[in-house]
Amino acid sequence: MSRLMLVCAAVVGLATALPAAAQFQKPEDAVKYRKASFQVMATHFGRIGAMANGRVPFNGPAAAANADVVAFVANLPFAGFVDGTSGTDKGEPKANVWSERAKFDAAAKKMQEEVAKLATAAKANNLDQLKAAFGAAAGTCKACHDDFRVQ
Amino acid sequence: MSRLMLVCAAVVGLATALPAAAQFQKPEDAVKYRKASFQVMATHFGRIGAMANGRVPFNGPAAAANADVVAFVANLPFAGFVDGTSGTDKGEPKANVWSERAKFDAAAKKMQEEVAKLATAAKANNLDQLKAAFGAAAGTCKACHDDFRVQ
Repeated sequence: MSRLMLVCAAVVGLATALPAAAQFQKPEDAVKYRKASFQVMATHFGRIGAMANGRVPFNGPAAAANADVVAFVANLPFAGFVDGTSGTDKGEPKANVWSERAKFDAAAKKMQEEVAKLATAAKANNLDQLKAAFGAAAGTCKACHDDFRVQ
Repeated sequence: MSRLMLVCAAVVGLATALPAAAQFQKPEDAVKYRKASFQVMATHFGRIGAMANGRVPFNGPAAAANADVVAFVANLPFAGFVDGTSGTDKGEPKANVWSERAKFDAAAKKMQEEVAKLATAAKANNLDQLKAAFGAAAGTCKACHDDFRVQ
């Protein structure tokens, strides 16, 4: 366990250590990367949602493990929003990601804060706490999608 | 920082908390998930490789941050190797992932051990140490690809 704890120690520094534009050789690499990291995050978030919404039985340790992955991976995708990668197809980022970047970044930060709270709440092994924290986190996903993602 | 450290505390338990077969509703979901997690891992591993191989200037903090992500995400993709998802196209897993599962799991574990060592080595902020640990980790990637991935 301690090794994995160490593994996590510096990841918060990623955003500052690596300016987004310098991280990807081609814009399409950035798009692939952000999609992949959202896919991983959505998989684990969805498993918590299935418990929160009663579609699968509540399993406290599984919820906690999934929430830990969500909270970690939530730090990753935003580096992939490099200039020139907006789109008009469903699911693609709208141009206002860049024209309203401060608002977008704030929405991302809000999500990261809520999934961090979800990871803490999930450790309580209590379904009601999980539901509340999941709902708050899901609200931040939806808010950002409503504002910045092509419907 | 401490919150992110907490976030990581239970993720080691993921494999045991969540039997692979029970985690995905459809085999194609498992395929998408493992591809996505390998994509994230490869992006960050590739950035370390670019430094190790002299294609970009050595940046110790960036190497350390990338190695931390690699070491974390390396725990994820193997849950996506669910039955019935082998293939014959380039890059797909061969059937021996399942017929030689113990050997495959050992190869995965070896990789996870080497990328954990890489994350530790990267914190030394020394290019020679980074190169050595990167080479060892890359060797475990290649060994598993040679044995279990369609060429």
